[in-house]
Amino acid sequence: MISPAIVLVHPREEGNVGSAARAMANMGLDRLILVEPAPELGKMATAFAVGAKHVLDACERKPTLQEALAPFRRVVATTSARDRRWDVPLLSPRELPAWLAQDQPGTPTALVFGPEVGGLTNDDLALASAVVTIPCSPVQPTLNLAQAVLILAYELYVSRGELPPPATVGHPEPPATSGEIDGLFEHATEVLRRIGFDRDDSFEGVLRDLRRLAARAAPESRDVAILRGICRRAIRALERRT
Amino acid sequence: MISPAIVLVHPREEGNVGSAARAMANMGLDRLILVEPAPELGKMATAFAVGAKHVLDACERKPTLQEALAPFRRVVATTSARDRRWDVPLLSPRELPAWLAQDQPGTPTALVFGPEVGGLTNDDLALASAVVTIPCSPVQPTLNLAQAVLILAYELYVSRGELPPPATVGHPEPPATSGEIDGLFEHATEVLRRIGFDRDDSFEGVLRDLRRLAARAAPESRDVAILRGICRRAIRALERRT
Repeated sequence: MISPAIVLVHPREEGNVGSAARAMANMGLDRLILVEPAPELGKMATAFAVGAKHVLDACERKPTLQEALAPFRRVVATTSARDRRWDVPLLSPRELPAWLAQDQPGTPTALVFGPEVGGLTNDDLALASAVVTIPCSPVQPTLNLAQAVLILAYELYVSRGELPPPATVGHPEPPATSGEIDGLFEHATEVLRRIGFDRDDSFEGVLRDLRRLAARAAPESRDVAILRGICRRAIRALERRT
Repeated sequence: MISPAIVLVHPREEGNVGSAARAMANMGLDRLILVEPAPELGKMATAFAVGAKHVLDACERKPTLQEALAPFRRVVATTSARDRRWDVPLLSPRELPAWLAQDQPGTPTALVFGPEVGGLTNDDLALASAVVTIPCSPVQPTLNLAQAVLILAYELYVSRGELPPPATVGHPEPPATSGEIDGLFEHATEVLRRIGFDRDDSFEGVLRDLRRLAARAAPESRDVAILRGICRRAIRALERRT
């Protein structure tokens, strides 16, 4: 049974947060995380969250998307853009349950939704190991935020009981948490600085490309530890020689 | 292509009618019928009907459900009640498209939704030749009206052959060749030597783990070039300091 946390990045309308909470409760999800800035949840949110006040009451707030994602080992982002090209798997909502079922049962998983206007940025998307696009008519191709939450939650709900037991192929070890990968990137950035890469115009772009590569690789905790060990050694070697 | 009319019986909130219209437009439906009494559609309805004003503008009003249904040859009702017993087929949303596809193409079809509170009556349900129940968590088993419309419209939309070819493959760029990855590893091994990693007992194992990680990441040629650029810079920085 896959019960991801729902992460809403900078939602603008509290009514939409309330509606999303209701949709979550309808489909058996209960962990909601808001990335600031996000509206205060007052009467309007409660009015829309019919039967889901427990979801709003338990909702967490995080200052950045990275902090929100730190505890999760599997991150899936949503986008309405069809024409952009990603180097991570691009899934339909229907394909999502089987794709997540490749992970060990209980793998902490987050589904990330962007703001009502504009959606997730490329930097946000770089943190995800898969992207889901909801099929829509070209006449009105953008779904309301709560509607998008509903469709994904519905597909996961309906898939329960239908999916074969988790495949034994796939990841024997759980993937590293986003927090572990953040730590690796701080470390790697430090190495890149020390070898003078930060003076390149392409520095930010390179970091983003490496981040995307890491999301695709889905490194295990052990891989991250090895790579950090290498960074540590490189920094020490560079220091010794000054 | 099954494009049913959406019939809302006595909807109470104009915002819900607007949201339902948006959900319809999202999923390529455009015929909306309201059974009186139904609210006037003012600013609130328009605000919720983002991108679907054409649906609201063309919406029809009928004094009774029977009159609303008169032109249709196939009528499907929706209900959240799970435990009642019907003498008509009881379908899940996923089963609906195939069931409707048994009709001649172009058969005029209506999907009927009850009021926000209470749903359709037994008399209403008696007019339908099938009943659909949307699967829901027992914690919050009633969907918002527009959400219910969305799920059925989504299932019909997804079942059409109109969808863009499923983009399950994620690589817009071809993955790097094994030869390119070999080159990267020679380069990386050289860096590891220069920072003294080759004196570790674990050196060979680390190389193997990195190799597995690279295989899983399926880097593009461009990623390999970036990583080799970093190796080159690291080697130069280490040389400068000897």
